[in-house]
Amino acid sequence: MSVRVFVVGIGSGDPGHLTGEAVAALNAVDVFLVADKRAATRDLVTLRAELCAAVITHDRYRFVEVPDPERGPDAERDSTAYAGAVRDWHTERARRHAEAVTREVGDDGTVGLLVWGDPSLYDSTLRVVETIGDLLGAEGVTLEVTVVPGISSVSLLAARHRVALNRVGRPVHITTGRRLVGEYDDALGDVVVMLDGDLACAGLVETHPDLEIFWGAQLGLYDEALVRGPLREVLPEIRRRRDAVRAARGWVMDTYLLRPGTGR
Amino acid sequence: MSVRVFVVGIGSGDPGHLTGEAVAALNAVDVFLVADKRAATRDLVTLRAELCAAVITHDRYRFVEVPDPERGPDAERDSTAYAGAVRDWHTERARRHAEAVTREVGDDGTVGLLVWGDPSLYDSTLRVVETIGDLLGAEGVTLEVTVVPGISSVSLLAARHRVALNRVGRPVHITTGRRLVGEYDDALGDVVVMLDGDLACAGLVETHPDLEIFWGAQLGLYDEALVRGPLREVLPEIRRRRDAVRAARGWVMDTYLLRPGTGR
Ligand SMILES: C[S@@+](CC[C@H](N)C(=O)[O-])C[C@H]1O[C@@H](n2cnc3c(N)ncnc32)[C@H](O)[C@@H]1O
Ligand SMILES: C[S@@+](CC[C@H](N)C(=O)[O-])C[C@H]1O[C@@H](n2cnc3c(N)ncnc32)[C@H](O)[C@@H]1O
Repeated sequence: MSVRVFVVGIGSGDPGHLTGEAVAALNAVDVFLVADKRAATRDLVTLRAELCAAVITHDRYRFVEVPDPERGPDAERDSTAYAGAVRDWHTERARRHAEAVTREVGDDGTVGLLVWGDPSLYDSTLRVVETIGDLLGAEGVTLEVTVVPGISSVSLLAARHRVALNRVGRPVHITTGRRLVGEYDDALGDVVVMLDGDLACAGLVETHPDLEIFWGAQLGLYDEALVRGPLREVLPEIRRRRDAVRAARGWVMDTYLLRPGTGR
Repeated sequence: MSVRVFVVGIGSGDPGHLTGEAVAALNAVDVFLVADKRAATRDLVTLRAELCAAVITHDRYRFVEVPDPERGPDAERDSTAYAGAVRDWHTERARRHAEAVTREVGDDGTVGLLVWGDPSLYDSTLRVVETIGDLLGAEGVTLEVTVVPGISSVSLLAARHRVALNRVGRPVHITTGRRLVGEYDDALGDVVVMLDGDLACAGLVETHPDLEIFWGAQLGLYDEALVRGPLREVLPEIRRRRDAVRAARGWVMDTYLLRPGTGR
């Protein structure tokens, strides 16, 4: 038995950010496997269904929920013990997905897994798919996996602010809120921060007073918010905007670029 | 007078990688400004024209060549004197573009600037557009600039190899061939290398024998080549494939991801 799997980067919510290849892949899918998400992200589940409805030209596709194992670890830490817990959790997720494939998808069927932004950045879907392949392979089921790249929130952030991520010939470093303060160094080049629960950049204001920030929340969504300027000057405004988005919507997702100000 | 400018990320050559927003932007353009390129990249000029022809549904658009100033610096160095030379070169480029806008585009006209991949990575178009805006602003011409994000060669590399760029909760570092050996450190996280004229990763084989490489050349084009595996084992094969592409086509563009092998 053989099953096709499309892992599709769907951008950040604007259907205009889907590529032609993504639209074709979505149209080829019989069964979309989606994790059931906590109430806070019900919005995103709806949005995903709306994206599909906007571009799929038939009605022969289904969404099948694959409940996530309890207490999914937050993906930001990296101690060794913690890495083990993450692995177990991933394996259990993969097992549930493999079960759903066996149950819901016939020979020559096509499965879709949707990923916000681009599948290559801070997303576990590709690791889960690899494990699903191992599990199903043992039962004689072959997966043919195609990954469809998407517009990441990082590309969208840069586009909205009309800036490059790098200075001429210099590097770009993409990291998490949890790591930022410990890791920050001018030599890293311009730094993009994701998975930041609470504006970790506040911890750099004293030590790096020259930093500029390009911040964006809810990129691609109706409540998109953008702020740019010297970090120490605009941080209060960012905090206000961030709190306002969260108050109105119940959740907020943001990302930002830090670089030394043009004064230097 | 007011002129609209679309800076459009067009991906790496496959029309399927254009987003819906990019297709709409291309269709809205009256005049595409394109730098004339050395013979080696004539291929790319043709490819760009073909991409436009594939998705633009009218024939009221034109390509206007804006000759690049002599001896464009290669964008990889970063000494201070060198940065000055780059700046002068950019200013001269911007001046020629501003002239072309004044000459070729009327009030309420729409200009398109096409960028390979995503405009945010190692591309000078956004800096040039900022300077064009300053130059034309002084003459009372307002630019309304929209940046349309695209699928970068980095996203495409990861998609083709079906891997994430980061390990769980760890950073991603994007740098140039010229910087790689001096800069490399495990603490940077997984490292993406661009603008590498000659496989600088060869310089890491002795010092970091555990590295794995995910390499891709001509991503999105008909002569796409992919190799992955332990760096010290597959480097000779990559060199062979790279030389073969260049021999057949006259030029080669490649990028790769380096990460410590799963043995650790
Ligand atoms: C689990 S990661 C997934 C990233 C995704 N694969 C991508 O390419 O954008 C989630 C993080 O991405 C960023 N992010 C995702 N969507 C966003 C949006 N619409 N606006 C701003 N940031 C976003 C935030 O930093 C968030 O914490
Ligand atoms: C001037 S940079 C432009 C990058 C572009 N803005 C992007 O987002 O991909 C050129 C470098 O990008 C990478 N690159 C661009 N197109 C590529 C392709 N089709 N295949 C592999 N690498 C490519 C190579 O590392 C090349 O040296």
